[in-house]
Amino acid sequence: MKQSLGAKTLVYPTPVFVVGTYDQNGKPNVMTAAWGGICCSKPPCVAVSLRKATYTHGNIIARKAFTISIPSEDHVKQADYFGVVSGRDTDKFAATGLTPVKSDLVDAPYVKEFPLIVECRLAHVFELGLHTQFVGEVVDVKADESVMSGDKLVDIKKVRPFSFAPDTQGYYGIGNFLGQAFSIGKIR
Amino acid sequence: MKQSLGAKTLVYPTPVFVVGTYDQNGKPNVMTAAWGGICCSKPPCVAVSLRKATYTHGNIIARKAFTISIPSEDHVKQADYFGVVSGRDTDKFAATGLTPVKSDLVDAPYVKEFPLIVECRLAHVFELGLHTQFVGEVVDVKADESVMSGDKLVDIKKVRPFSFAPDTQGYYGIGNFLGQAFSIGKIR
Repeated sequence: MKQSLGAKTLVYPTPVFVVGTYDQNGKPNVMTAAWGGICCSKPPCVAVSLRKATYTHGNIIARKAFTISIPSEDHVKQADYFGVVSGRDTDKFAATGLTPVKSDLVDAPYVKEFPLIVECRLAHVFELGLHTQFVGEVVDVKADESVMSGDKLVDIKKVRPFSFAPDTQGYYGIGNFLGQAFSIGKIR
Repeated sequence: MKQSLGAKTLVYPTPVFVVGTYDQNGKPNVMTAAWGGICCSKPPCVAVSLRKATYTHGNIIARKAFTISIPSEDHVKQADYFGVVSGRDTDKFAATGLTPVKSDLVDAPYVKEFPLIVECRLAHVFELGLHTQFVGEVVDVKADESVMSGDKLVDIKKVRPFSFAPDTQGYYGIGNFLGQAFSIGKIR
């Protein structure tokens, strides 16, 4: 028997994207967002939704670029911190000791210590309500060599990303391998 | 040291959304999509991106509604199957023995056996390239009573959703609780 929970934002899993931007003075900033995901294969695009009140919102509009740094479990505290304070009055890199690196492809910084980086050129801005959805065209993905396995493949078990559960607001790691897509479900 | 992987669709985690629609004859259909996520809090909206070639794409345009059924680990094979064959020539419910239930709020069916359901009214259609992004306004979320814990909260460890790793194309369960958001990162 299913119980009605009302109109709310609840799906699993939601990602933990650390969105990197420069402000008008060139100060690097990061904020954490869970409303987003891949939205197109060709061109490769990723979406992230932000409230207009955030410092990052204005930065993306001005610079027309952002990065997404995917944190590992080792950085869950820093990733959470990035979503708690505002870059308007805080230097979040200085506060956490993490290192901003200027992307060589887009006008935005990423987090050096995080294992997977997606560099995006702003492609679309969609006003949806409280949130603005920014669609970025992926210009490059970069991964630490330590999380690679074989020929340009990334090993998720080495990245150790985590997800966010919207209603209980917990962070959860990635669990067991369950099967291979486009294969495990084939019925003879 | 970071290695460049090129422009590709790689973030972690991506969800496994089973998208429910009716076709023009009223036949219920489901397909699996990993390109999507929550995209607005007010109104609550969720996005899912589909190729124009899919049967579901036409169904959503015609019916202006869809559901998202979140599968548990128990249904990983069926969820994968839903992404392998087309509803154009297959009755996926009949093939898997799963049960379509007509939403009482939107013109779309959901999967009875899956623990969490999101019912959506089509709000926006954005053409991004190979994929069309459908933004649905969430009209209701429904959960099995067996996955609830306390006052209208859903326990992710009872739902046991899973995620998709885009480059290696594996499905992975949800792992350990790592901390509470908006709390674990607070620096004194």
